[in-house]
Amino acid sequence: MHIELVRSSTKSLPQQISETLAQRITSGLLQPGMRLPSVRSLASSLKVSQVTVSKAYDDLESHGHILCSQGKGCFVAKKPQKAQESGFGWQDGYDDFLPRAQLWRNFDYSNVRYPFHIAAIHSDLLPLDEIGSTMSRLVLEQPELMASYGNFQGDSELREVMSRHLRKHGVAVQASGIMITSGSQQGIDLVARTFVGPGDTVYLEAPSYTGAIDVFAGRGAEMIFVPMDDEGMRIDVLTKLCDRRPPKLIYTNPTFQNPSGVTMSITRRQRLLELARSYRCLIVEDDPFSDLYFRKPPPPPIKSLDEEGHVVYMKSFSKVIAPGCRIACVAAGGNILSRLIAAKSASDLGSPLLNQRAVLPFIARKYEAYAEQLRAALRGRMETAAKLLKQHAPPGVTWNLPEGGLNLWLQLPAADGIAGLHARAEQEGISFLPGDVCYSGEKPSRHIRLCYSQMTETEMEQGLRQFLLLLKEHLGSGL
Amino acid sequence: MHIELVRSSTKSLPQQISETLAQRITSGLLQPGMRLPSVRSLASSLKVSQVTVSKAYDDLESHGHILCSQGKGCFVAKKPQKAQESGFGWQDGYDDFLPRAQLWRNFDYSNVRYPFHIAAIHSDLLPLDEIGSTMSRLVLEQPELMASYGNFQGDSELREVMSRHLRKHGVAVQASGIMITSGSQQGIDLVARTFVGPGDTVYLEAPSYTGAIDVFAGRGAEMIFVPMDDEGMRIDVLTKLCDRRPPKLIYTNPTFQNPSGVTMSITRRQRLLELARSYRCLIVEDDPFSDLYFRKPPPPPIKSLDEEGHVVYMKSFSKVIAPGCRIACVAAGGNILSRLIAAKSASDLGSPLLNQRAVLPFIARKYEAYAEQLRAALRGRMETAAKLLKQHAPPGVTWNLPEGGLNLWLQLPAADGIAGLHARAEQEGISFLPGDVCYSGEKPSRHIRLCYSQMTETEMEQGLRQFLLLLKEHLGSGL
Repeated sequence: MHIELVRSSTKSLPQQISETLAQRITSGLLQPGMRLPSVRSLASSLKVSQVTVSKAYDDLESHGHILCSQGKGCFVAKKPQKAQESGFGWQDGYDDFLPRAQLWRNFDYSNVRYPFHIAAIHSDLLPLDEIGSTMSRLVLEQPELMASYGNFQGDSELREVMSRHLRKHGVAVQASGIMITSGSQQGIDLVARTFVGPGDTVYLEAPSYTGAIDVFAGRGAEMIFVPMDDEGMRIDVLTKLCDRRPPKLIYTNPTFQNPSGVTMSITRRQRLLELARSYRCLIVEDDPFSDLYFRKPPPPPIKSLDEEGHVVYMKSFSKVIAPGCRIACVAAGGNILSRLIAAKSASDLGSPLLNQRAVLPFIARKYEAYAEQLRAALRGRMETAAKLLKQHAPPGVTWNLPEGGLNLWLQLPAADGIAGLHARAEQEGISFLPGDVCYSGEKPSRHIRLCYSQMTETEMEQGLRQFLLLLKEHLGSGL
Repeated sequence: MHIELVRSSTKSLPQQISETLAQRITSGLLQPGMRLPSVRSLASSLKVSQVTVSKAYDDLESHGHILCSQGKGCFVAKKPQKAQESGFGWQDGYDDFLPRAQLWRNFDYSNVRYPFHIAAIHSDLLPLDEIGSTMSRLVLEQPELMASYGNFQGDSELREVMSRHLRKHGVAVQASGIMITSGSQQGIDLVARTFVGPGDTVYLEAPSYTGAIDVFAGRGAEMIFVPMDDEGMRIDVLTKLCDRRPPKLIYTNPTFQNPSGVTMSITRRQRLLELARSYRCLIVEDDPFSDLYFRKPPPPPIKSLDEEGHVVYMKSFSKVIAPGCRIACVAAGGNILSRLIAAKSASDLGSPLLNQRAVLPFIARKYEAYAEQLRAALRGRMETAAKLLKQHAPPGVTWNLPEGGLNLWLQLPAADGIAGLHARAEQEGISFLPGDVCYSGEKPSRHIRLCYSQMTETEMEQGLRQFLLLLKEHLGSGL
């Protein structure tokens, strides 16, 4: 079992070990009943003392993650799994570099009736007929699009269209400064694999996007979560933290932040960029939602202020027009971009060309008008959800009305019992995202995230009513 | 600049540094005219002595990779690049984890008339009309396929179809034991990012697939290349090497190997698996070509012998039916698979669902008959190419006739001048793959790889004639 230990970290070694193992247990990567390595063998493989490992195991046991018994060793707690097929046991000792995988655990429900867990838009609202008819025409007229690997950087025509779109929104970038990715998730992953290594310091908002946390954790980064207020990430706090640990990279989702919904003010955007310049580091600006505002357009992207290539800007068209096509873009400058393209080639030889061409005409010609309609529809959904919350949310539950985006971020009176609520809701076919996965995992969160746009309005209303009843029951039960 | 140093390696530290930098220079990641860090600063960041860095720089200079001048420092050789836009200079000092990127450098030609460099099949031979008409029907009848993220592991129906296919070919795997990837390149990448870390020992065939070498290099692996003979990887040599450095992973392409065309014998397959069992390590069996045999079917996959989950088997349908759709599968067992699925989720949230469904009916019902026709067509191409070679290849150039696959692996009398030949060929619109990129890069290779199936037969004939003339000129010129 590989655990990336950072000796210069503010966290103690036992704490680093126990947190990593706890992450792996809650992610399901270490399964119930699985035997942990002995104290002696883990200590030897991590090159730490046996006391350090013992402390970590004690901590895990006191939190109920593992069960230890004299002479038999320590096992992952809860119901014992069914015996592994014989012969596969060697795999348990085969090291990996996956300290955390909350995405995997929390976003893969096929049979949920009311999917509030995933920040997505219901197919009724998406321009699928348009894109479908383009795709249908393309495969019949240019079947060779399915034969070609295309260009690693992405189709040049699509990059041209995207650069026009970005320029309209304040980001002065040429087609040559853009790379196409399979969703922004891949963009984040490419940046992390290219520029972030063991022990590198990555700053994120607290809370942040769970998929980004997974990726940076997978690179062995030292992640530091910076508190937010209603203007976004606290740059004053970040500045002080950077004094102690200079940043390798700062990940931010400044507009209608996922999950909190908060938007970073223009002043903070400027100060963040100044900070990155002074530390000669990168900012990853993840921007899936800026077109989805309810009242007034948000401030321009940080990238629009960037003249020296400090910002890697990620704009997803995937979420907004066709998630299943997996098309997003990354705008970056200088050799930061060329290194990302090299990483993309090693990662998958480029995104499917057909999918790129299928979304091209829509983005080129119809996207702006569509976005206007979509904003109105989403605002309607949000207001319906907000009304229901106001009427039926139990006392002690609070939330802010978002100015855009797809999510509501609810604060419950306490963190205890959210796992139970989650399990109970799942039984009734309702999913939500527990706030825990949006933090480092050090302590339980009392937040949950609900997406209001992934169902029809009627389904969303039904689901939300039912969920609020469950929530009332849950809170009434004394937790 | 991050360089992963392995202190227990058989290579000296100066050698490790100079090889990594040479890789980055030949990959184009360090561009001509770019200034290298000073001896003092690189020594300090790598925690080695200044003498070590000086030795590495001397070595690079003696091979013509860099130019050093007293007082000014060392610069990447060749023509100075055009001055960077002001302000972007900080990027040169921004560390990355990309020691090598030959794929990026060698597989991205949009305007080549005779593309011999990429192992692919011309669109005329692919079932694009079939797949196109399925896709066209799907997008019109089920546009919601473009709205959904699908399952991280891959569409369950497609996994079912693939498991039936694999069972027919001797690999006893259920749909639950399969994951869909965006080409086998992504499969290799997922295994590497999940299981291979800095200093881990990875064994590969010499030569091997350049995209795999890039990926393992990017993880900081210690790669050891094992010689081959006409039965494939020399397991006797591998066994001795493993005594000294136990394997974390063995990467093999046992059937019609890319690039050499050699097929591993059944005995060696068994012995390789036994070795993996005794070292409790993984074998990655990359199998893009086993359906493309010319005379008799190749031996069954190593995976067919594997009862304890040591083999991660990668079967690409991408190359053989529609490269642009990027659909391949990975068969693995136990928690090796579940960890790979977690990595896939962090990597891109899953492959596009539509593309998966579009290839499904074809693989389910028509693939076997199609493969038979394809084999005949490819054999025809190969024989045409072989005839031309026999007639026109200059003396001293040798090759083996492959029993399957898409490539011819030519040996020239000497390694010198292949870079010049490559540049000269490119001017005439002809591309080939220099053998160098299929090795560690320690020493120049005198091989080149030509793919005979990526053009129409007529184009291939024209291109090959023209190339052989160039080759004659090249060899006649005394190189």
